[in-house]
Amino acid sequence: MRLKLRIAYDGTPFEGWQSQPSGNTVQDILEAATEKIQGLRSTIHGSGRTDAGVHASGQVVSFSTGSAFPLERLCVALNSELPDDLAIRESACVESSFSARFPAIERTYVYALFARPARAPLLTRHAYHVWLPIDLQRVRMAAAALLGERDFRSFCGLLPEGGVTVREVRRLRVERREDLIRIEISATGFLHRMVRTIVGTLVDCGTGRRAPDEMPAVLAARDRRAAGHTAPPHGLYLAGVRYDGFDSYAEPPIFRWG
Amino acid sequence: MRLKLRIAYDGTPFEGWQSQPSGNTVQDILEAATEKIQGLRSTIHGSGRTDAGVHASGQVVSFSTGSAFPLERLCVALNSELPDDLAIRESACVESSFSARFPAIERTYVYALFARPARAPLLTRHAYHVWLPIDLQRVRMAAAALLGERDFRSFCGLLPEGGVTVREVRRLRVERREDLIRIEISATGFLHRMVRTIVGTLVDCGTGRRAPDEMPAVLAARDRRAAGHTAPPHGLYLAGVRYDGFDSYAEPPIFRWG
Repeated sequence: MRLKLRIAYDGTPFEGWQSQPSGNTVQDILEAATEKIQGLRSTIHGSGRTDAGVHASGQVVSFSTGSAFPLERLCVALNSELPDDLAIRESACVESSFSARFPAIERTYVYALFARPARAPLLTRHAYHVWLPIDLQRVRMAAAALLGERDFRSFCGLLPEGGVTVREVRRLRVERREDLIRIEISATGFLHRMVRTIVGTLVDCGTGRRAPDEMPAVLAARDRRAAGHTAPPHGLYLAGVRYDGFDSYAEPPIFRWG
Repeated sequence: MRLKLRIAYDGTPFEGWQSQPSGNTVQDILEAATEKIQGLRSTIHGSGRTDAGVHASGQVVSFSTGSAFPLERLCVALNSELPDDLAIRESACVESSFSARFPAIERTYVYALFARPARAPLLTRHAYHVWLPIDLQRVRMAAAALLGERDFRSFCGLLPEGGVTVREVRRLRVERREDLIRIEISATGFLHRMVRTIVGTLVDCGTGRRAPDEMPAVLAARDRRAAGHTAPPHGLYLAGVRYDGFDSYAEPPIFRWG
């Protein structure tokens, strides 16, 4: 039986998605939970390898099992084995050919910024605090230059296997309500640290540290040093993954009210 | 010089407001920060003694100092000495007779509940998760019985000095948006654990564990055992304190968007 789960986590206490010797990753903790349920033990595949500290409101994972554990009780059973910072929101039985990682049509990340002089202690873990005022027009101007199919090598941390750094950014929306800024980025796939480097560079444009019309030159440089700073992980959310006939999107709670 | 500060904190890492031998309270950490600024060292008074784990978006504190530290730089100077979970949002110079604790006209607490079967990892630290469905009509019916000047002894943890347990609840509002429920309670003053015991009892009414029309009998019993469970601290926010000519109210971020 092949299972697909929609999961959410607060990235603060975890060392990212992917299994590590420490065992303190989302994948490790999920796999340990499956071991506690008779016959369910399995290797779990995630749709996106979130870095340490990055949150997820709509991550999708898949695994195979020979167990006949009743699907309708699977969420409750697994959640009772998981820490409070990690939860399964939905489980479904899928075709045996399905893998969370490969057939995704689109992934959407949401980044939370709050821009004001004073800290907001109650947002510390869930948004990136920028002390300087941010000019949204400048951010939007810079963002427009990053839409479409581009070579994002300048916005890439570790180069991917094969070295292909062309990706298609399908949506890049910037909205503000009071001092909270929401940046939504959708693409088929992302490079390592691509969203955080895009956000850091957009922030640099918004605060006046760099000019929004530099973006074409930054892309053309194909050099990480041409782009801006890497925004920290705690403002980033893997919000949704779209497959044929299924979309896991869930708005991060920081933006859900209203 | 007498100073009034409006502060906010995430209660998760602190052992409450009031000074303790451990030194890990909001008062201790604020006082330690004043010590680091030449001549500012002072005892700080808070408008409400929040329990361990309780948050504040609009706490007010006051202290006296002989220091001539320029007021316009005080927020920045103190914030640079404070941990991320605690921040000063505003400072003002006040009359020497002012104390944050005594002349408050009204205090407002906001409580965040989320009611749905599955956990929400990204709200874990900032709202109380209730697994059972909550019937808002039943909650409102029970809440109506608690409005006005009443003897709240049944909703009191430790009895106050003098033993007077009559308080006036001026507002008790219950709203829901999707799975998030906001309970706002305003009164001149509150008894120990009064808000959390009221919220716990309202939740018991909402989930069907007790009948909303029992509230008059619960009040009349003047016995803590007559009321419901104590809701946990992590859903509670000291949101505002109103003085003559000044209101520190700030909506907790979990409810601010939109």
